[in-house]
Amino acid sequence: MTTIKDVAEFAGVSVATVSRTLNNSGYVGEESRKKVERAIKTLEYYPNEVARSLFQKTSKMIGLLLPDISNPYFPLLAKGVEDCAQEKGYMVILGNVEDNLEKESTYVKFFSQYNVSGVLSASAIQKDAKSSIPFVLLDRAMEKEDYSISTDDLLGGKLAARAIEETKAENVIVMAGPKKVPGANDRLTGNLQVLNHSNINYKIFETNTYQVDKAEKIARNLFETFENFDSVIASNDVFALAVMKEAMRRKYRIPEDLQIIGYDDMPFSRYMFPGLTTIAQPAYEVGYRGAEMLFNLIEKKSITQKKVILKPEFVQRETLR
Amino acid sequence: MTTIKDVAEFAGVSVATVSRTLNNSGYVGEESRKKVERAIKTLEYYPNEVARSLFQKTSKMIGLLLPDISNPYFPLLAKGVEDCAQEKGYMVILGNVEDNLEKESTYVKFFSQYNVSGVLSASAIQKDAKSSIPFVLLDRAMEKEDYSISTDDLLGGKLAARAIEETKAENVIVMAGPKKVPGANDRLTGNLQVLNHSNINYKIFETNTYQVDKAEKIARNLFETFENFDSVIASNDVFALAVMKEAMRRKYRIPEDLQIIGYDDMPFSRYMFPGLTTIAQPAYEVGYRGAEMLFNLIEKKSITQKKVILKPEFVQRETLR
Repeated sequence: MTTIKDVAEFAGVSVATVSRTLNNSGYVGEESRKKVERAIKTLEYYPNEVARSLFQKTSKMIGLLLPDISNPYFPLLAKGVEDCAQEKGYMVILGNVEDNLEKESTYVKFFSQYNVSGVLSASAIQKDAKSSIPFVLLDRAMEKEDYSISTDDLLGGKLAARAIEETKAENVIVMAGPKKVPGANDRLTGNLQVLNHSNINYKIFETNTYQVDKAEKIARNLFETFENFDSVIASNDVFALAVMKEAMRRKYRIPEDLQIIGYDDMPFSRYMFPGLTTIAQPAYEVGYRGAEMLFNLIEKKSITQKKVILKPEFVQRETLR
Repeated sequence: MTTIKDVAEFAGVSVATVSRTLNNSGYVGEESRKKVERAIKTLEYYPNEVARSLFQKTSKMIGLLLPDISNPYFPLLAKGVEDCAQEKGYMVILGNVEDNLEKESTYVKFFSQYNVSGVLSASAIQKDAKSSIPFVLLDRAMEKEDYSISTDDLLGGKLAARAIEETKAENVIVMAGPKKVPGANDRLTGNLQVLNHSNINYKIFETNTYQVDKAEKIARNLFETFENFDSVIASNDVFALAVMKEAMRRKYRIPEDLQIIGYDDMPFSRYMFPGLTTIAQPAYEVGYRGAEMLFNLIEKKSITQKKVILKPEFVQRETLR
């Protein structure tokens, strides 16, 4: 393997000059620079990033922890992270932790052993891990001192309930997402703040999971548990979809007999028939801006806002009257 | 930072003994081992993976190149890769290359600079990149000498057309996927092999893209271009969905007036109403078994089968008569 010493010898300059040329730092005369560049080309010398990272104690890698990559929200978020990382010349190491603490700690340990420059996490992250490395939480703004990008789920919950209110709904089922997901509680609170100030009757249906493969059973359960409801505020788009399917199977007309609003605005939601009315979360933007914030931390730039909260949006389609 | 030398000094043993203890190789007396372990604990010494990787010229990382992470097929595949990698104690660096050669070559260069142990690619990969590092192609078995895991798309195409044939369809629209995607051609060939041996009339509708955000327009285009068809073989589930929506908007009953079959079996496909009949691709298994093969290559185990071809399956739901 070609070393920096070989390059220096071939070019007839010092190792320090080669290093300055490579790192674009300090003064290097025009002629020396040309010699070094020619030597690099001739000898096919590629500076080894591992060596550089060992020397600098950081690498051009960031870690990304996701709770569940098969939930379509997270690939969109990952795409935002990766686009930003690529612009900055960084690579992304993916960790799919599935809300499993052991998996998470394996990844965190690995990240630190590989000198990653920072970590983005859409999963919970242990305190120990945070202290030693720049990190930004995505959609999980848990503690005051944390850097985070999230979406205003309280507002999202209000938007959904207000949309239902405007249709003159009478009996609403509110699907409450899993309690351990911070955003799920905020959405529910937002829903209830609006509904409690209206004349609408509502009942809460607790789902305890966002898992895609549970949606069918939960939707069936909803129709077996409740009667005479005319609207459903679903905990996300996948669950809205499953409720729509079960409703149609039972010969409800949507939205005439039953109206449904989702949450997320997944790519497939507009291809439903009728098209799913929902609250759009800016998944790509959460990822992209989270990565931007992380790079600012890594580069020790001043950050004026530790917690960025993005706004969800109401997307009108065809499942509300 | 604590070094291996500090550990040796603290333990009162040689650096070689610490190294043997860490790597679990060679003889280390019971007492020395205990001393070393105590020193490591006291000094909080973590052997640096970057240093190890620099020394060994490989790292416990593999690269994964995907053409489009927002297409729901690929996160499932990535999950399979990641599960297998985690069992082996490896990390996955994600590269979302979007069929962009420049992005791809940036990633490949990076992978090599970081001494990754191997690369899995569901995207095209340049010849240069292949020679220097173990790699396995996922769903892109292009050249004879390549290691690959793929799905039998020809069979998948046949299965879809046979299912349509059994319904006594008369006029079928066959949506042909983008020509540059190898699997798309095989599916089309499979479709036609069956249809050409039947009495069914068919027409080919070329779509040239799998992009999710083009599906709506393409579906509309299909209904504007063709008349009097009773069946559609869609190029994937997202496109099937878009065709279903446009058909329902135009008051077709599915499957009575128009039947549709998809391809992929995405998680959302069973939540359609009616449920989408489709051909299931084993995305997770392609990822998992691809990673298994890659680790066998990395560990220089003998591989009996260079090209593994998995079987797609017909999934009956409600969109065929």
